[in-house]
Amino acid sequence: MKPSQPQGTRDFGANVVRKRQYIFNTIRNIFELYGFQPLETPAMENIDTLMGKYGKEGDKLIFKILNNGLDNPAKEEKTKEGFEGVLKGKTSKSVTERALRYDLTIPFARYVAMNHGQLVFPFKRYQIQPVWRADRPQRGRYREFYQCDCDVVGSRSLLNEVELTHIYAEVFKQLKIDVEIKINSRKILAALAETCGGADKLTDITIAIDKLDKIGIEKVKEELAARDVQTEQINIIEKYLSITGSNEEKLQQAKALLANSELAAAGFEELEYVLANTTIGDKNLSIDFTLARGLNYYTGIIFEIKARGVEMGSIGGGGRYDDLTGLFGVSDIPGVGISFGVDRIYDVMEELQLFPEEVQIGTEVLFFNLGEKEAQAAYRLMQQLRSVGLRCELFHEALRMDKQFKYAEKRDIRFIIIIGSKELEENTCTIKNIQTGKQESASLTDIEIIKSILA
Amino acid sequence: MKPSQPQGTRDFGANVVRKRQYIFNTIRNIFELYGFQPLETPAMENIDTLMGKYGKEGDKLIFKILNNGLDNPAKEEKTKEGFEGVLKGKTSKSVTERALRYDLTIPFARYVAMNHGQLVFPFKRYQIQPVWRADRPQRGRYREFYQCDCDVVGSRSLLNEVELTHIYAEVFKQLKIDVEIKINSRKILAALAETCGGADKLTDITIAIDKLDKIGIEKVKEELAARDVQTEQINIIEKYLSITGSNEEKLQQAKALLANSELAAAGFEELEYVLANTTIGDKNLSIDFTLARGLNYYTGIIFEIKARGVEMGSIGGGGRYDDLTGLFGVSDIPGVGISFGVDRIYDVMEELQLFPEEVQIGTEVLFFNLGEKEAQAAYRLMQQLRSVGLRCELFHEALRMDKQFKYAEKRDIRFIIIIGSKELEENTCTIKNIQTGKQESASLTDIEIIKSILA
Repeated sequence: MKPSQPQGTRDFGANVVRKRQYIFNTIRNIFELYGFQPLETPAMENIDTLMGKYGKEGDKLIFKILNNGLDNPAKEEKTKEGFEGVLKGKTSKSVTERALRYDLTIPFARYVAMNHGQLVFPFKRYQIQPVWRADRPQRGRYREFYQCDCDVVGSRSLLNEVELTHIYAEVFKQLKIDVEIKINSRKILAALAETCGGADKLTDITIAIDKLDKIGIEKVKEELAARDVQTEQINIIEKYLSITGSNEEKLQQAKALLANSELAAAGFEELEYVLANTTIGDKNLSIDFTLARGLNYYTGIIFEIKARGVEMGSIGGGGRYDDLTGLFGVSDIPGVGISFGVDRIYDVMEELQLFPEEVQIGTEVLFFNLGEKEAQAAYRLMQQLRSVGLRCELFHEALRMDKQFKYAEKRDIRFIIIIGSKELEENTCTIKNIQTGKQESASLTDIEIIKSILA
Repeated sequence: MKPSQPQGTRDFGANVVRKRQYIFNTIRNIFELYGFQPLETPAMENIDTLMGKYGKEGDKLIFKILNNGLDNPAKEEKTKEGFEGVLKGKTSKSVTERALRYDLTIPFARYVAMNHGQLVFPFKRYQIQPVWRADRPQRGRYREFYQCDCDVVGSRSLLNEVELTHIYAEVFKQLKIDVEIKINSRKILAALAETCGGADKLTDITIAIDKLDKIGIEKVKEELAARDVQTEQINIIEKYLSITGSNEEKLQQAKALLANSELAAAGFEELEYVLANTTIGDKNLSIDFTLARGLNYYTGIIFEIKARGVEMGSIGGGGRYDDLTGLFGVSDIPGVGISFGVDRIYDVMEELQLFPEEVQIGTEVLFFNLGEKEAQAAYRLMQQLRSVGLRCELFHEALRMDKQFKYAEKRDIRFIIIIGSKELEENTCTIKNIQTGKQESASLTDIEIIKSILA
């Protein structure tokens, strides 16, 4: 049998794990600096927790887990019924009671609903865990991938939006990715919808606008017409979508266009608050009125992150919502959150070669194994170096030196330390830097000198 | 609907995540110091990769994932056939093609088999990831739990066993858990089996010995008798199991008992090598001839870790195996590995209160929010403190001071910084240590002084 991993999933070897950890650690540190607390939820959720939360298409993409013990004769009747249901597209609990989480938001909502009596609000949590989707695998789309979210719930203060904007700016500054942080307010989109045929047009309009980047304005107009938006109203939307200039200029034009809407005024106020209270600068934080974000539950400021200098979809996004936990019977918990697209961030950093070299370093020193006594001396020195934090290995067998050297090269180990019979006699070691070829000798008792050579 | 997480799974809030991360990070750092490289494999494996690897009982405990699109009419026939199979206890691929990993060893073996042409041997990898088992949940046994393994493959050198022994010693020294590292060699158990009725008795004998701790020697003897071991041979086994004394004394007695076996001699040599080449001391590293380890694939040195001063099963174990990847068509890859039982280590550390206090620290400083201008000044100072690594929050709204104070208390935040109208006028801030009650004033421009107060 030729082994493989399932389609759409990946093994991560050491180099990739290290680079991914670099991204995760950078984000995690910033989350912590901003007062967010870690949460981890199980990979599996009860099937009721997940089903019906992501739309019909989403339901189909949820990985369901087969109940165990389905060969139990006592349950045969029920199980058979369940199978009948599955054939008709139902999720029968006699067949599947659990499923793999599809995102981090619903498990978070479930957690808050379960624990809201004990939590201190505002509750600021971050969560960095994998999710699973039965999507058709393709370039850049996987069936297992990490999400990286932070949310504040139980607060309506716009200070949170300001903080999240700074988190985005700080993370990408540290990762050295040049980004444009785009913001908009769903209130303005809702106002636009009201102006163009009523609030019930909001979903149609946002779906159409969401496609602007991909299909262009003419197709968006066609799509709007197909969704019963009137020509006059399409003209307003076109005007809205063609707003350009500095943040201030954009605000002016939009205000003129939606002058009579209280809802729009509230949206403009939100944007102005965020712009006035952040220290990021217009170049990197810009209003984008074409930003819609597909998800219906957003109600205020929305975010999206675009990396400059590389062809790539958004590498982050989020926004404010009114009701996190209503679906689980706990009402009145508003919040705002953002998410980092770690797989895309990884690809951007690879393409632009942004990973620092240190990230790649595994073992720093290889000790040659040149016989039993020699290896014992090497082991003693190695343990001293490990105790001060140096990552070391002693070659496992006393093979020929060229074989040991080859191992060091293949493993990208920078230093080799040789303790042969001559060194053993003199109580010294020979330290060689493979990159530079430089070779130095040091006394085995002078650990400080050895450390300085390896520095 | 009252939400809950699935039976046997857990949510980890901030305090627990932090403590668990402390354990993971300690282990990870030591793995890296010893030259091990990280590997991550997907949560799902192809069902063929997992089935048949853990015995009949194991197969039943594997969580299988339902294929998506089972309501596809074009596949109805196949799907129905599959359901028939499932009812009879088969795993039909028309119903389930994937399953959740059950341990980290088989995915590792699958990875090595897939990549052995590119890997540099000896290949030293560590892996810290969750696994899933459909076990009946009970105290200390979960359906989702982490495993934490390191293995060296492609080397027969006993140096690896020495290194792994040191890894155990170093990890538990850093975690401040007093442990006994028990070692034995499966070769000695195999020799005992040969002496007692032939090599085919090895499994019977190890299974019986494995239960010694739980059921006592009399029941073990009964069990051996039930498995057709002769009285005379049971007497030898009883003698073997009652060997006591220092490591040296134990070796002497065992050598006398198994004097004529070459296999035993090879086992004694292994033990002597490890004892001679480690620097741990007999008190913490002891031969335990009653140690058997249930798994059949071990062939040389085996390990088990017992925490002292607490009622708890083993918190780690491992051993040498001859053939990691034979099941996947790649032969002659021997190796040795150890595992840490993180959930039990966590429980031991909780019981003995071994977690350092620093581990628990989330947000260090809360800035009071006392109005718009005041909050802006607070935000500026906060960003300066964050940039030097202090975890800070600004309270989200200008509520009454006692409410803000209560938030700080509930969140265990140690310092509050107050910038009210008076402070704003004087360009100062008031810093209060909640634990000591001590209150100091500092100029907003003197960041060094502020840092020193918060230190």
